[in-house]
Amino acid sequence: MSVTTTRRLVGRVRDHVLASSRPDELAVEDPLVLALDGDVLATLMRTPGHDVELAAGWLVVESGVRAAEHVHTLRTCREDNTDRVHITLAPQITPPRPRAFVTSAACGVCSADVVDLAPLRWAAPHSEGWTVDGAMLAGLPDAMRTQQRAFDRTGAVHAAALATPAGDLLVVREDVGRHNAVDKVVGHALLNDRLPATDHLLVVSGRVSFEIVQKAVAAGVAGIVAVSAPTSLAVDLAREADLVLLGMTRNGGYNTYAGAEYLR
Amino acid sequence: MSVTTTRRLVGRVRDHVLASSRPDELAVEDPLVLALDGDVLATLMRTPGHDVELAAGWLVVESGVRAAEHVHTLRTCREDNTDRVHITLAPQITPPRPRAFVTSAACGVCSADVVDLAPLRWAAPHSEGWTVDGAMLAGLPDAMRTQQRAFDRTGAVHAAALATPAGDLLVVREDVGRHNAVDKVVGHALLNDRLPATDHLLVVSGRVSFEIVQKAVAAGVAGIVAVSAPTSLAVDLAREADLVLLGMTRNGGYNTYAGAEYLR
Repeated sequence: MSVTTTRRLVGRVRDHVLASSRPDELAVEDPLVLALDGDVLATLMRTPGHDVELAAGWLVVESGVRAAEHVHTLRTCREDNTDRVHITLAPQITPPRPRAFVTSAACGVCSADVVDLAPLRWAAPHSEGWTVDGAMLAGLPDAMRTQQRAFDRTGAVHAAALATPAGDLLVVREDVGRHNAVDKVVGHALLNDRLPATDHLLVVSGRVSFEIVQKAVAAGVAGIVAVSAPTSLAVDLAREADLVLLGMTRNGGYNTYAGAEYLR
Repeated sequence: MSVTTTRRLVGRVRDHVLASSRPDELAVEDPLVLALDGDVLATLMRTPGHDVELAAGWLVVESGVRAAEHVHTLRTCREDNTDRVHITLAPQITPPRPRAFVTSAACGVCSADVVDLAPLRWAAPHSEGWTVDGAMLAGLPDAMRTQQRAFDRTGAVHAAALATPAGDLLVVREDVGRHNAVDKVVGHALLNDRLPATDHLLVVSGRVSFEIVQKAVAAGVAGIVAVSAPTSLAVDLAREADLVLLGMTRNGGYNTYAGAEYLR
């Protein structure tokens, strides 16, 4: 059983007085090593739990993995006091290459290489004539919130969810990292043969940055519903990718940043 | 002049009705390429502004750069529609190596490689007999808040600041990335010959994860004051590194997660 929260002694100072000193729940952050064919591929700082889904979702965004059969094995183990996922891929899949630190033999990487979503797009985000009920979208963060168990205990863990076109939540995942929570959701969808998630919605507890839109496009969802605000680049890319993008989704209201024409 | 916020057309839906549709301010997110001796070293998704400081602070954490003279040049330019900082280092400095994706010839990276702060520690965090006024610390986030210009316009940008032992803010920086805001602050300190920032405090607007503690140790500060909560690993490492760590610093109160013995 993975430990997602843990207790540490915490002092509470209120009105300049130590009001209490007792163990309090904190979100666990711990490294997960992804190893491909025995070589270390990446080290993710994540909240333990659903590590196989996290690895699977990471592969969807970072490699050509698009279906469960593209992954031969995802085997978890603990070696040298560290959690690992050992990965082997189907022969036709190009292994992931480092992206966070883009290295090149010459100073020739242009912004198009960094922000181009085209290589991630492999399916239409929505079917012909698709529209979505705005009132249903407005309720998704509250529905997700009822399943954020680690947030209940710590108040400091991000969440992501995948919702069907009808607004049912298929999966809710939590992590100290916004991006990890999304990867766990995408990995769950991959392993359950639900990719591309056409007409589905990605729900996120925090802000929407470039990388969240990247992951949404790789998963093939029709839109993103966020509790907080998007960045300028997230808006531009969501529009380019023909996604619905809602932000500041609170108290029944929301802002539309992209795809308002699909709301009904 | 760097553009830190920009306007996009945003629809506001309240009570299921489109209440308004007008341009609204969003935080800018845009790539910055760091190039060392002409080779691309890293691509950071950041809010434009203080790019030289961002590059300098990134180098403090990712390489052996500890003083302004360790950096020969930091030259900004715009090529191929992308902002870049061209870096040359003093000969004695080991060039940074990719860390976000740790690669190795064999599956032999243990957790110590990932979470060991010892290689980053180069100065004591505080002088002999140092203590700090808890009430002063409790006021630092509000003092920083008065200088968060991009947050005023967007409500969605992180901030970091460096405070003197007396509680004066030397520098406040904003960015869509929590880690970038801290790197800008550390870079400012480096370029102004203020590292190691012994007895100083790092103030952050958000949560404290492993990487924020890493940056605090590399900068040599005595403690971290955060508006939100830390992760378990951040607490463990702050204790190991003998730092003060305050979280949930709001409304005059705070929680002590590490170093409570240094508060007076």
